[in-house]
Amino acid sequence: MADIPARTELTVTTGPIRGSKKIHVPAQGNADVRVAMREIHLEPGSGEAPVRVYDTSGPYTDPAVKIDIMRGLPQLRRDWIVGRGDVDAYDARAVKPEDNGLSGPDRAKGVEPFPHVVRQPLRAKSGANVTQMYYAKRGIITEEMIYVAERENLGRARLKEYIRDGEDFGAEIPDYVTPEFVRSEIARGRAIIPNNINHPESEPMAIGRNFLVKINANIGNSAVASSVAEEVEKMVWSIRWGADTVMDLSTGRNIHDTREWILRNSPVPIGTVPIYQALEKVGGIAEDLTWEIFRDTLIEQAEQGVDYFTIHAGVRLAYIPMTAKRVTGIVSRGGSIMAKWCLSHHKESFLYEHFDEITEICKAYDIAYSLGDGLRPGSIADANDEAQFSELYTLGELTKRAWEQDVQVMIEGPGHVPMHKIKQNMEKQLEACGEAPFYTLGPLTTDIAPGYDHITSGIGAAMIGWYGTAMLCYVTPKEHLGLPDRDDVKVGVVTYKLAAHAADLAKGHPAAKVRDDALSRARFEFRWRDQFNLSLDPETAEQYHDQTLPAEGAKTAHFCSMCGPKFCSMKITQEVRDFAAKQNQPSDQFIAAEDVEKGMAQMSEVFRETGSELYMGSGGREHD
Amino acid sequence: MADIPARTELTVTTGPIRGSKKIHVPAQGNADVRVAMREIHLEPGSGEAPVRVYDTSGPYTDPAVKIDIMRGLPQLRRDWIVGRGDVDAYDARAVKPEDNGLSGPDRAKGVEPFPHVVRQPLRAKSGANVTQMYYAKRGIITEEMIYVAERENLGRARLKEYIRDGEDFGAEIPDYVTPEFVRSEIARGRAIIPNNINHPESEPMAIGRNFLVKINANIGNSAVASSVAEEVEKMVWSIRWGADTVMDLSTGRNIHDTREWILRNSPVPIGTVPIYQALEKVGGIAEDLTWEIFRDTLIEQAEQGVDYFTIHAGVRLAYIPMTAKRVTGIVSRGGSIMAKWCLSHHKESFLYEHFDEITEICKAYDIAYSLGDGLRPGSIADANDEAQFSELYTLGELTKRAWEQDVQVMIEGPGHVPMHKIKQNMEKQLEACGEAPFYTLGPLTTDIAPGYDHITSGIGAAMIGWYGTAMLCYVTPKEHLGLPDRDDVKVGVVTYKLAAHAADLAKGHPAAKVRDDALSRARFEFRWRDQFNLSLDPETAEQYHDQTLPAEGAKTAHFCSMCGPKFCSMKITQEVRDFAAKQNQPSDQFIAAEDVEKGMAQMSEVFRETGSELYMGSGGREHD
Repeated sequence: MADIPARTELTVTTGPIRGSKKIHVPAQGNADVRVAMREIHLEPGSGEAPVRVYDTSGPYTDPAVKIDIMRGLPQLRRDWIVGRGDVDAYDARAVKPEDNGLSGPDRAKGVEPFPHVVRQPLRAKSGANVTQMYYAKRGIITEEMIYVAERENLGRARLKEYIRDGEDFGAEIPDYVTPEFVRSEIARGRAIIPNNINHPESEPMAIGRNFLVKINANIGNSAVASSVAEEVEKMVWSIRWGADTVMDLSTGRNIHDTREWILRNSPVPIGTVPIYQALEKVGGIAEDLTWEIFRDTLIEQAEQGVDYFTIHAGVRLAYIPMTAKRVTGIVSRGGSIMAKWCLSHHKESFLYEHFDEITEICKAYDIAYSLGDGLRPGSIADANDEAQFSELYTLGELTKRAWEQDVQVMIEGPGHVPMHKIKQNMEKQLEACGEAPFYTLGPLTTDIAPGYDHITSGIGAAMIGWYGTAMLCYVTPKEHLGLPDRDDVKVGVVTYKLAAHAADLAKGHPAAKVRDDALSRARFEFRWRDQFNLSLDPETAEQYHDQTLPAEGAKTAHFCSMCGPKFCSMKITQEVRDFAAKQNQPSDQFIAAEDVEKGMAQMSEVFRETGSELYMGSGGREHD
Repeated sequence: MADIPARTELTVTTGPIRGSKKIHVPAQGNADVRVAMREIHLEPGSGEAPVRVYDTSGPYTDPAVKIDIMRGLPQLRRDWIVGRGDVDAYDARAVKPEDNGLSGPDRAKGVEPFPHVVRQPLRAKSGANVTQMYYAKRGIITEEMIYVAERENLGRARLKEYIRDGEDFGAEIPDYVTPEFVRSEIARGRAIIPNNINHPESEPMAIGRNFLVKINANIGNSAVASSVAEEVEKMVWSIRWGADTVMDLSTGRNIHDTREWILRNSPVPIGTVPIYQALEKVGGIAEDLTWEIFRDTLIEQAEQGVDYFTIHAGVRLAYIPMTAKRVTGIVSRGGSIMAKWCLSHHKESFLYEHFDEITEICKAYDIAYSLGDGLRPGSIADANDEAQFSELYTLGELTKRAWEQDVQVMIEGPGHVPMHKIKQNMEKQLEACGEAPFYTLGPLTTDIAPGYDHITSGIGAAMIGWYGTAMLCYVTPKEHLGLPDRDDVKVGVVTYKLAAHAADLAKGHPAAKVRDDALSRARFEFRWRDQFNLSLDPETAEQYHDQTLPAEGAKTAHFCSMCGPKFCSMKITQEVRDFAAKQNQPSDQFIAAEDVEKGMAQMSEVFRETGSELYMGSGGREHD
């Protein structure tokens, strides 16, 4: 039966992903740290061990947890944070009407304030630094690092079955991830754990090229939301299918309240572009933006628990004219807001000028930078141009300044880039930004397929992920055309999940192949349900199967719709194996290439005995 | 309005693709050869020239042509073929009941014989050779080569506007394609023009790595076809969206008659896997296959006009045991039929043994070989293994043997290959097969996304196309799960079209960028209809747009649904340009990087005069 996910009264999607069970694995080094994973159980009798997969879905897929979005998720990290003794609770900044847009919140649209707002957020004690990078540089292994190590090790217990194989372009992926390895990666800036101390609900995760490739999904408020549950559901739906982080790109009214609902219910890090909210506070007039309004917005979001900020501080005044000759100019919204401000005042960007002050804020809450690429190319024609790379080198300069204060940094990247120019993006980023994690949007490898830009960009995403990009920002089929609906979000997430996994395979990530091999064996052995359950989207796989062969019996039948019941190429392979076995020889030696002629008649006889009764006949097409 | 394609009484899809006009361009060197192209007309007033695109759709999109599938298409090439004076007409082999399956044709299913079957097919005169390779090696430039040259030159008239840019991995793509270049590529085996002299309805096209990357769509008969028109429609639908060749993989009953209908109505080359039909003739019992039955099938299909044959002659007896230790064994249907035959008789493959005799047949009709990769990997685990490459080197040996008789050859390739192992496939193929065109199925870059295998394989297809593969065999979303329907075929074709185009861009194919740039300019200038019409799938692009902004006025509005009417990053860029222009300086110099501070107040004043009145405000999300 197809998976019809249950919804709670407040209409967020809950219940296990089909064929799967939520498990909590005690971490190496600290058994109190229990890491959530998903285990896919295969057919009894198949002799197959359950397959453990990385699980971004949080408690929503755990039947043992009662979900109540009015209360928010349990505060997994609260004790770890407080236990370090370097934070103070203090009275939060008062919420202002303009935090929800210039006209204030719109209660008619069903967006109420979250009923259990934290009135006393946490902040680093005066003079303290609470970033994971700060701890890491001082040799401290945090619970967050322990959690990440176990989470990334997923499946590596089976590594001994595999010969590692891949091309990692200079990455240094270990056989096993230890907490110490996580620490060292964070200390040198090669990975980040985005986890604001005011978002204790989050399950720690790492972004870095020596870890599994991650993906981000974007959500945003909608003017016609029927309830806050609808807004929360967008996040829940994204993480169900595999989003590792979610960016809330809401604009207009209700921004503050919507974000609060999302944060309190999110087990994944939440990123934002604070300039969007700041712009709302000045009625959408970019030139009216000031450092003071922007700074106040950062504090507002820091106290709520935003885990990473996109800051377009690399859009310097001098670079803006470089975009005038482009085919598509400036396509980043944040980039164009800053360009407008800079041009209007003819001043250097206030984000650039006040960068160290922003870093001070990040340091006090452990917010990671996602340094925005406001000048990224918006078309194949504009890829890898002067404006783009000028900004990138400024982002590199800012990375080093952030690292001086031990603030975690990742770097945003393009955009639209033809395949032959993708690698240069990765190489320049590594060089300019000292191996800080790269976080790219696609890139799209051609401009001519609107409606299919999840695919044009999925190609670029898989490639740049292979080359070393640590997180891929998804693109949905609606890109350039309209706003994604629920189905578009799912297609976007699954497409990026498969691109990230293809990258992990190609990098030679240990044990990435476990899932491919389990699925291929299920396919070969006609374990249809196992094939569905092991796939990234079991529902769609089953639906497609059922469109051709709807009968329930067809799911256990040892044939498929391509060749029908009487002939199957996979059965032939079984005969090859049986024949080899009957001869009592290792199958790879059973006929030596130079020995073909010998004993042909005799072997032919053996074969007729073993199983040449197999039927062939009606069927379909050559399927791969 | 969305494009609702018309259908003729016999229900094949006709009518222009929206926004496009069929044109016929006189070829350089022979104005009697008129090459079909599609011209996309852009908004009057945009100042944009029409964009010419490669057109595979044949007369079906030409309103000037009355389509009658009972008669078939006009015989474009008939005079060229007969004019060369090296063919004879002769009495065709009599159609046997078993040509339509062991039970003969099933007239109840609506498959009638084509009413105008050619009773007198053509064949090379005794001792003659009618292949394009034969002519090419002797310095003869045929009309087919002239046609191909003009067709490939598409858009290159505008090449002077472009600086060529790409990485072609040793291909030799010229600025302009001359008929002589086509001849030389065919002479050295680097390209083929598949065009059986008994398929004069086809519009010549080339497959080779110095030409545009091509794509193939597979079709097959269905047991529940309501009419022959449904079978013809599958081909018509595939080529409408861009299939350059179509393979008819029908099995079961009505094979012969269905193929006749398809060939007589197809403007693109048709490929088959003759062993499928031969197997039907022996009731599906692989071990009952004989060379005589196979040979008779080849003649049957040659006389009908099949343009290329997939022949799995590289599945040698000695290689079969190499598959025993694989995760997914032999997944090619043709490969497994031959494996079964070889094992059963314990004899070398009759395809391998009789290869030169098959070549004799190909030579007499100009049928190209598509040497099948019967041992291709069916999973990531099996990629690039001994069995696969052993077969590949045999295909290289057979290529040289075919070339000795001047028969055109392409080589089939995998399959399932992780990204880091794709390039090796291309390199070994070039080395083993003397640069004969490579024709791959995907490859799929991971096994874990059934339901999304058009995407897992589109990634691999784009990459291997970039590396040098000449034709990409499509994969639909139903791969591994069920039989594709009409929508699946379209999604598969468009996905492969975008992958092929991404490859052309990355190879630095001259003028490939013309379409991307035209679309990006349309996007930047909010010419929505132009953006739809320039896309690979105008219908889907418009539908997606309309889901968010359905009003007809929104198609001419200078904003999009992402940012709403009051703010747009693209407008900011226009302001940057206007500002630069008003200063009367070249835009790339208007502020020198080292001169930022100077005259800030003055410039700010200029900007306020030019256009800072632009509103910003309500909106959506950062869109790429």
